[in-house]
Amino acid sequence: MKRSAFFISDGTGITAETLGHSLLSQFRSIKFEQITIPYVDTQEKAHAVVAQINKIAAQDGKAPIIFDTIVNQDIRTTIANCKGFMIDIFSTFLHPLEEELQTSSSYTVGQSHAIVDESSYKIRIDAVHYALDNDDGARTRNYHEADIILTGVSRCGKTPTCLYLALQFGLKAANYPLTEDDMDDLKLPQVLNENKSKLFGLTIDPNRLTAIRSERKADTKYASARQCEMEVRAALAIFNKTNIPYLDATSLSIEEISTRILAATGIGRRLQG
Amino acid sequence: MKRSAFFISDGTGITAETLGHSLLSQFRSIKFEQITIPYVDTQEKAHAVVAQINKIAAQDGKAPIIFDTIVNQDIRTTIANCKGFMIDIFSTFLHPLEEELQTSSSYTVGQSHAIVDESSYKIRIDAVHYALDNDDGARTRNYHEADIILTGVSRCGKTPTCLYLALQFGLKAANYPLTEDDMDDLKLPQVLNENKSKLFGLTIDPNRLTAIRSERKADTKYASARQCEMEVRAALAIFNKTNIPYLDATSLSIEEISTRILAATGIGRRLQG
Repeated sequence: MKRSAFFISDGTGITAETLGHSLLSQFRSIKFEQITIPYVDTQEKAHAVVAQINKIAAQDGKAPIIFDTIVNQDIRTTIANCKGFMIDIFSTFLHPLEEELQTSSSYTVGQSHAIVDESSYKIRIDAVHYALDNDDGARTRNYHEADIILTGVSRCGKTPTCLYLALQFGLKAANYPLTEDDMDDLKLPQVLNENKSKLFGLTIDPNRLTAIRSERKADTKYASARQCEMEVRAALAIFNKTNIPYLDATSLSIEEISTRILAATGIGRRLQG
Repeated sequence: MKRSAFFISDGTGITAETLGHSLLSQFRSIKFEQITIPYVDTQEKAHAVVAQINKIAAQDGKAPIIFDTIVNQDIRTTIANCKGFMIDIFSTFLHPLEEELQTSSSYTVGQSHAIVDESSYKIRIDAVHYALDNDDGARTRNYHEADIILTGVSRCGKTPTCLYLALQFGLKAANYPLTEDDMDDLKLPQVLNENKSKLFGLTIDPNRLTAIRSERKADTKYASARQCEMEVRAALAIFNKTNIPYLDATSLSIEEISTRILAATGIGRRLQG
């Protein structure tokens, strides 16, 4: 079965998408054709959106599901006239919140993402540049500034996790790959030993690692099943021997790896949305 | 006025946080103390959360606001007994959706982020590595693979935007800084000329640029007001002269820059949440 779903906003559309994806993922028997339309901030755009929704509704023979976070009342009224099934996210929750908080909401266009707090912006950008500068063990002299240092074998997910931690939570995350030298003597490199309290390990299923590495460098020793197995086993031995907390990243998304690390370590966020 | 807010989930907590932040940002007169508790997936953890909420409720003298996306019914029942004001996100919307879609929802723990589709994972990781490898004009020979190439003066927001486009949308985004050489003759570098259809410019207020650069390299020519003004003016002249679409990034968040670029160019996402 196939249905269409729209995520519509007068801002970025991120809230409508995030909530919409979560809700739709609870209906696995249905395939959703998903369309995001952000910045619907004029009546002209709103009428164009209605026409698009109605066209899809006619094609599908079923009402598209509409998730909207439009704050402007007039634009929301226009959209509400479409032939879709409306999930009006803000109006559903803002009224009960207004009563509980005993105050009116400001209903400003795209407010959730529009206001750039300069200190938050700086925290975030600094964290991104920190992750870039301290990626892949390239530089270790700034580890004293790190909130966390990820370690593990090459291609187990360290780099994207560090970038996500930086962008989403403003954390300074470095990463250091364990290499064959470390594996020979099953010891932490000296620079990691000095920063042991900040270390967090990632491990991965050797077969998955083989597949990932083969995508990049097929038919090399680096991507071979034997090498991947040896490295993963050695990395695990090092984590266990040196009491480094670690996580199996095999079947986790970057969001899950990141949030599980925060939950496991108790490291606080530097940004709050 | 100060209130406490909790974002509680048996998964990552990202949906609860995203929606919660959007809703709370509509109440600007109130300062919210925000606490995220992900992976509440046992009764033991749920009871600990209730105790934590009740303690804060007693301290505040007001009910904390609880945004939850817990899928497990028993755990949700435990949490619902706390002394908080409950915004139960999933149950609010899943029932009407079940009726409209004429099917039951699967209510699986953390389903929205838990299922790692291997092809999506690969798209995402490849995009992140593409952004890293093609950051800051370091390499230009893979521009034929790019979905988009951002350009503009140093420190106008290109790098974090490319990484966000990669992580969030799976897009291959390169970036190329305009330097003084380009500014002397107000021409696009040859390598950009060859990929003109993929170019998108970012501009920034010169005063803001001066502040950003000064954080990094205070009292240098690079960070001087005069240099920043000259570079921004020259970059704008190049964008206008060569008909490159551009955006003023000064007061925009990374999410806004990214989603506005997609809206302006019509570039489609490679990932759908």
